[in-house]
Amino acid sequence: MTKAATYEIDVVKSKVSKIATVDFENLVFGRTFTDHMFYCDYVDGKWQQPKIVPYGPMSFEPSARVFHYGQAVFEGMKAYKDDDGRVFLFRPEENHARINKSAARLAIPEFPKEYFFEGLTTLVDLDKEWIQPGKGNSLYIRPFVIATEPAISASPASTYRFMIICSPAKAYYTGGVKVLFAEKYSRSANGGVGFAKAAGNYAAQFYPTALAQNKGFQQIIWTDASTHEYLEEAGTMNIFFRINDTLLTAPTSDRILDGVTRKSVIQLAKDSNVKVEVRPVSVKEIKQAAKDGSLKEIFGAGTAAVISPISAFEHGGDVFELELTNDSYAAFFKEKMLNIQHNLADDPYGWRYEI
Amino acid sequence: MTKAATYEIDVVKSKVSKIATVDFENLVFGRTFTDHMFYCDYVDGKWQQPKIVPYGPMSFEPSARVFHYGQAVFEGMKAYKDDDGRVFLFRPEENHARINKSAARLAIPEFPKEYFFEGLTTLVDLDKEWIQPGKGNSLYIRPFVIATEPAISASPASTYRFMIICSPAKAYYTGGVKVLFAEKYSRSANGGVGFAKAAGNYAAQFYPTALAQNKGFQQIIWTDASTHEYLEEAGTMNIFFRINDTLLTAPTSDRILDGVTRKSVIQLAKDSNVKVEVRPVSVKEIKQAAKDGSLKEIFGAGTAAVISPISAFEHGGDVFELELTNDSYAAFFKEKMLNIQHNLADDPYGWRYEI
Repeated sequence: MTKAATYEIDVVKSKVSKIATVDFENLVFGRTFTDHMFYCDYVDGKWQQPKIVPYGPMSFEPSARVFHYGQAVFEGMKAYKDDDGRVFLFRPEENHARINKSAARLAIPEFPKEYFFEGLTTLVDLDKEWIQPGKGNSLYIRPFVIATEPAISASPASTYRFMIICSPAKAYYTGGVKVLFAEKYSRSANGGVGFAKAAGNYAAQFYPTALAQNKGFQQIIWTDASTHEYLEEAGTMNIFFRINDTLLTAPTSDRILDGVTRKSVIQLAKDSNVKVEVRPVSVKEIKQAAKDGSLKEIFGAGTAAVISPISAFEHGGDVFELELTNDSYAAFFKEKMLNIQHNLADDPYGWRYEI
Repeated sequence: MTKAATYEIDVVKSKVSKIATVDFENLVFGRTFTDHMFYCDYVDGKWQQPKIVPYGPMSFEPSARVFHYGQAVFEGMKAYKDDDGRVFLFRPEENHARINKSAARLAIPEFPKEYFFEGLTTLVDLDKEWIQPGKGNSLYIRPFVIATEPAISASPASTYRFMIICSPAKAYYTGGVKVLFAEKYSRSANGGVGFAKAAGNYAAQFYPTALAQNKGFQQIIWTDASTHEYLEEAGTMNIFFRINDTLLTAPTSDRILDGVTRKSVIQLAKDSNVKVEVRPVSVKEIKQAAKDGSLKEIFGAGTAAVISPISAFEHGGDVFELELTNDSYAAFFKEKMLNIQHNLADDPYGWRYEI
């Protein structure tokens, strides 16, 4: 697919590029931003003229509702470059649909598809020099919407800003990730906003994650808040468990994000004759499988993390190590995903979206 | 109590006051701000020089973590003026302790007590002309902390801004509030951040509240996310139920805010020989009490709302109307609270804090 221009965006180009100052070999995730950014304001009940301007600080009222009530949602996407310099997105319609699903739950007006795609493709095209070719390299793209109305009553804002900023990226997690299974803290409630990429879902994980890190574990696999008996997701990744040759992953729900990487892995697994069971996965069965040797792998799947193998997990004081090998489902699906994303393999699903 | 100056704040005064432009008789909650604001940045592992400057917009990076991950907490406080022009806060130590409790849960560094009090009292003193005397009038004070670090990795920021802004206020809710008891949506999870004044807790309520409003109810009384059988709080207020002559209110927990007004009402009730039971309150018993006539009142208690009588509730399709009278506990405790706050009654508890 290629874009169809449907809306004229005001573009103010940066006078000088910062690209020469960037050390692409030593990128820290999410700290370096490209030369431009996209924004569009919602005022008087409609989205106004979309704009691309040089990346930089913007002025906000201290009473803007986003600062007080967390009325904000976001997306994570990536652009990839092949060896011929062609640039691709991966399933961007999914991200557009999801940011609007998140927005609806946070009482934020939906962002029109044509604005989203025109903004996204114009911005990525403008900053495409920032995308390094090669597997593992990408341009991380962050669409987000924030409530800007300067009023601190606890109710939905009447003005918003939709933005897209871009950051060149290498892998998010490197090596095997050690995780805790949550026993006390929770990420989301039944009937809550866990399925949405709502800003507040993320800050709520920082403190428990810091406690985990103090114990030597980088991430937490969250469990259901009611019983802590079922494994849900990792906050920045959905989670897959391999027992013998079957993959297990929790069904999406109002507590669990419907990850694009997750659903892509499920599709690839089915088409690779790997059995996938989408069903509640209990802590008990995973610990039992770890003990009897049938648990072969655990891995996370997410846009930032791609496929991220878990090297150990802890629960109830028991630590289980998992051997990381290249002959794994994690490695197999990561390779398949990256090959599609980087235009190194056929794309029977139509997942690539050329800029 | 009076303040003890402990820290020199940089003060830049506004050249002209906006106060003449304000219609104090027709204030909309949270839309009008005083002439000055306080802020203090956390950089290099410590809180820097606190400042008071003219109220106005500030510059932020679009990558500031608060926009993406909701790493933000706040407080709500009020200043009151008596007929002699003396200005009082109400239990401000509680707000300082709570913002730090909220901050800890959101992995935000605590804000020092001396900065908090010096900033608060200097700011309120500077803008005291904005406080109208008379019961029902107040200056609503909003301390808040936001993560400012320009980096979109999902982890705690290394830089923050603590701010205080002030808004002249009349009553938040007027008349009786009609509420729904939550049956599907939830405010917070066990092990979550419901006890904290975390920004994201509030935006998460906007959509379900909008649905309630479409049905003619202004607010939701949230129930426990696991069973929806127990009544918790209303998001901007804790909730009290009067059955015959006994007040019931839910115990605080990791899901329920430890409200300053709530604990003040409990204290006043005890000292007024009103029996208070702090225990889980079930939907079933409240509906039964409404049916048999023993449910006399429901009211909310919160800084913005003060004491706010509930005039009707709905659950499972049943609507119960509650007669609002002035001969009520709600009216009694509201009067007691306002008299203490406005220096019209003795303050045996030391709750007033004169500026």
